[in-house]
Amino acid sequence: MDVLVPYDVRNPKTRLSAVFDAVERHAFARAMLDDVLDSLQRAGHDPTVLATAPVDCEPSVTVDERPLTAAVNSALEDAVPTGIVMADLPLVTPVVLDRLFGATGDVVIAPGIGGGTNALVVRHPDFRVDYHAASFRDHYDQAAEKGLDVSVVDSFKLAVDIDEREDLLEVLLHGTGSAREWLTEAGITVDSSGKYPKVSLSGENS
Amino acid sequence: MDVLVPYDVRNPKTRLSAVFDAVERHAFARAMLDDVLDSLQRAGHDPTVLATAPVDCEPSVTVDERPLTAAVNSALEDAVPTGIVMADLPLVTPVVLDRLFGATGDVVIAPGIGGGTNALVVRHPDFRVDYHAASFRDHYDQAAEKGLDVSVVDSFKLAVDIDEREDLLEVLLHGTGSAREWLTEAGITVDSSGKYPKVSLSGENS
Repeated sequence: MDVLVPYDVRNPKTRLSAVFDAVERHAFARAMLDDVLDSLQRAGHDPTVLATAPVDCEPSVTVDERPLTAAVNSALEDAVPTGIVMADLPLVTPVVLDRLFGATGDVVIAPGIGGGTNALVVRHPDFRVDYHAASFRDHYDQAAEKGLDVSVVDSFKLAVDIDEREDLLEVLLHGTGSAREWLTEAGITVDSSGKYPKVSLSGENS
Repeated sequence: MDVLVPYDVRNPKTRLSAVFDAVERHAFARAMLDDVLDSLQRAGHDPTVLATAPVDCEPSVTVDERPLTAAVNSALEDAVPTGIVMADLPLVTPVVLDRLFGATGDVVIAPGIGGGTNALVVRHPDFRVDYHAASFRDHYDQAAEKGLDVSVVDSFKLAVDIDEREDLLEVLLHGTGSAREWLTEAGITVDSSGKYPKVSLSGENS
């Protein structure tokens, strides 16, 4: 099965701008991409990075400058089944990916926290993506309206996409790969001194 | 197996105080409890509500006025194996609970978003709970230090505990039971008009 990992080379992770500068955001996004690619490869897949500009990495890269939805739908017109796994899911493991790709259904959806769609397996040519923040419900309803079988994968590790400062907590607590290592080397830690744990930046008073 | 559902009767869901008044918080907490109890019963379990004061409900109720950690540890001293499932997990289904109780290990942990512990299966008499916001890592480390086998259940539905306004989004998007119905009847909806979906209260301008 084709497995695409969409990746924004140009201005990744803008919602982390208050925490990281542009160079740091690129490096952290790349560490997360590496984690996703590594887990896909260890699960036996041969992923393709669907990027907005060239990327220097070992898997094959398809450059498509269009917005995410148009680029993915173009790929879906060319081939199904296709898997689409977002590049900002640093907690995914080969075991989780086996659950995703092993789930039956014309369309398999892994929801993200906050209503998004973090991973899809599309096995029917009639399905099209429409990525936006509340896309889970729309993807689900589209599949149902088209009479397709839909499965929803119940996974915390697939649900945790890293967009905002508080999301870094999950990487520090549950991550095992490059993204966690990058955060640790950047001095990002978990501050457990208060009632609720929070992300502490290097040099911040706790 | 004994299955406990800890439930704060007195002042539940204080972090939702900006959204709901005290009467509403009690009613919503009760709707979530009913969802958890219903899923446990449909999964073949006979849960006991471990409550801070008497509760009028069909399952048996044990009243223990002590804080959560002391009350649960007292129960663990009396009997293992014991399952502990929090009362604010309205997305849980019998299928998810089968995964939780079917996981092997002396200790099975389902992490919550933000570092907490949302469900446990304790099969070894040496394990003790220490509930606090960052308890997942501490519970995991304690089990490892005691030489116990630990499993972590990777479930979005077990990870979503409802503490704050933004959490209500998950109930509206993914819930199927009493808690979702209660929110809907209270006029709480998903506002998808902006870039990111958010919770809209009855009477609020969107």
